[in-house]
Amino acid sequence: MGKVYLVGAGPGAPDLLTLRAARLLERADIVFHDALVHADTLKLATQARLVDVGKRNGKVSTEQRFTNRALVEAAKTHAVVVRLKGGDPMLFGRAHEELEALREAGIEAEVVPGITAALAASASLGLSLTRRGLSRHVAFVTPRTGADQSPTEWLGAASSADTVALYMAATQSQAVAADLIAAGRPATTPAIFVENVSLPNERRVVTTLQALRNGPTPSFEGPAILLVGEVFRELSLSVMEHEAEIRLAVTERCQAKSA
Amino acid sequence: MGKVYLVGAGPGAPDLLTLRAARLLERADIVFHDALVHADTLKLATQARLVDVGKRNGKVSTEQRFTNRALVEAAKTHAVVVRLKGGDPMLFGRAHEELEALREAGIEAEVVPGITAALAASASLGLSLTRRGLSRHVAFVTPRTGADQSPTEWLGAASSADTVALYMAATQSQAVAADLIAAGRPATTPAIFVENVSLPNERRVVTTLQALRNGPTPSFEGPAILLVGEVFRELSLSVMEHEAEIRLAVTERCQAKSA
Repeated sequence: MGKVYLVGAGPGAPDLLTLRAARLLERADIVFHDALVHADTLKLATQARLVDVGKRNGKVSTEQRFTNRALVEAAKTHAVVVRLKGGDPMLFGRAHEELEALREAGIEAEVVPGITAALAASASLGLSLTRRGLSRHVAFVTPRTGADQSPTEWLGAASSADTVALYMAATQSQAVAADLIAAGRPATTPAIFVENVSLPNERRVVTTLQALRNGPTPSFEGPAILLVGEVFRELSLSVMEHEAEIRLAVTERCQAKSA
Repeated sequence: MGKVYLVGAGPGAPDLLTLRAARLLERADIVFHDALVHADTLKLATQARLVDVGKRNGKVSTEQRFTNRALVEAAKTHAVVVRLKGGDPMLFGRAHEELEALREAGIEAEVVPGITAALAASASLGLSLTRRGLSRHVAFVTPRTGADQSPTEWLGAASSADTVALYMAATQSQAVAADLIAAGRPATTPAIFVENVSLPNERRVVTTLQALRNGPTPSFEGPAILLVGEVFRELSLSVMEHEAEIRLAVTERCQAKSA
C-alpha cells in the first residue's frame, strides 16, 4: 500500500511552494491536482502521471466522491500519491473528506501545509493582517453556504474580527458588504479584492464596504480573495490620493487646452 | 540603497520554507533573524552575516525599535537584506512597524509569506480547520494585550468563530479557557496545544476548555499554539480511547499479578 500526501500548492506562484512539497512532487508516482495549480509546479513531478481533478460538469459533490475514491485506488498501486491542492489543504480545502476516505480504507496519509491566499495577498499588499493597536485578530471565512445552512452563518465570525479574509466571496460580494454593514461594520471600512494573488496577472480592486454594497459587483476571471478591515486604509488612501492626482492632472490638461 | 525582504521562516521545520525564501537566503548579504529560526534554515544564507534580533533582556519595545533602525542602516550598505521571521510575517509578526520604518526611510521592501503555526499544526494533526457542516470559519487571535487594551478584547472574535487558533496563549491558558466558557463556548470543547510544531520534538497536549480552566496550566519550553474547536473532537476521542486502553491494560496486569 502506498502513502497519500495532501499537499498545499500555495497561492499561485510556483516559488511559493514549500521545499517539502517540491521534494514530494519530485518523488511522486501520481499527482491528483486542482485545476488552478501552476504548470511550472506540475513540471516538478517529472516521474508522475498527472490527473486533473478540477470541477467536472460543475457537479462538485460527485467530483469530491470521485476524488476520494481515486486517491484510495491510486494508493493500492502507487507508492507516492500526491493530492495537490491550491493554497493550504486545511482551509476551505475539503481535506477532511479526503482524509476520512483514506482512513476508512486504512491508507496512510500526511498533510503538507501551503501558503494560503490571504497571507499571500497581505504580503503582496505590504499590509500586515494584524497591527498593534488596530487589529489583533483575523477571521478566515467563506460566505458560500451549504444547503443546510443559514446564508449569513459566516457573519458572526466576520463581524467580530478586526480583519476579515473572505474566500470564494467575489460573486456575492454585494450581499456580503450589505450584511457586514448591517452587522455593524462601518460603511467606510476598506475592502480590497486581490485576484490571481502572487501571479504576474495579479490585480487589485480597492474599494469600501459601502461602494461594494452599492455595486456594481467587480467581476474576476481568476480566483479572488476579499480582505476587509481598517489595516487596509493606507491602501484606500493611497488609491484615493492617486485618483485625486489623476483628476488634478486631467483638469490641468483640460484647462491648458481650453486656454 | 539595498532592498529589505521580510521573509516568513515557517513554523520550524527547515523544509517548510518556501522556495522563494530559500533562494533569497542564498542571495542575502545580511540576515536579521528571530531567535527561534532553525539552524539549518540559517545555513542556507551562505554569504550572509547573521544577526540574531531575538528578545534583548526581555525589553520587547526597545528591541523592535532596534530592529527597525538596524534594517534601515543595513539597507544603506547591503544589496539584499533579509528579515527572517518565524511563521508568517503578516500574522502577529509586528511587520507593520518594520515596513513603516523602511517606508519612512525611503527603502524598498518586499514581503515573502510563510507557513503560519496554526496551519502547520492542523497539517500535523491531520485535522482540517474547516469542515463542511461543522466549521466554516477560523479565527486567528492572541490573548496577549497591550497596556491600552481590554484583557478580553480578543474574546469577541474567538467566541464567534467555529475554530480558533490562539497564538502566544500558553502561559495564560487557564484564564483563556475560563473566558471562552464564560462567553458561551461549551466546557467540553476540545482544546489542543501543539508545541514545537513540525519539529522532531513536537508535543501535543489534548484537553478540553473545562480541564484547561480547572488547571493545572500545561507548561512548554518551546512555542505552543492552542487550537480550540469541535473539529478536534476526533483527537480528543482517540486520546480518551487510548487512555481507556491503558487503564484496561494496567487493570489486567494488576489482576494478573494479584491472582
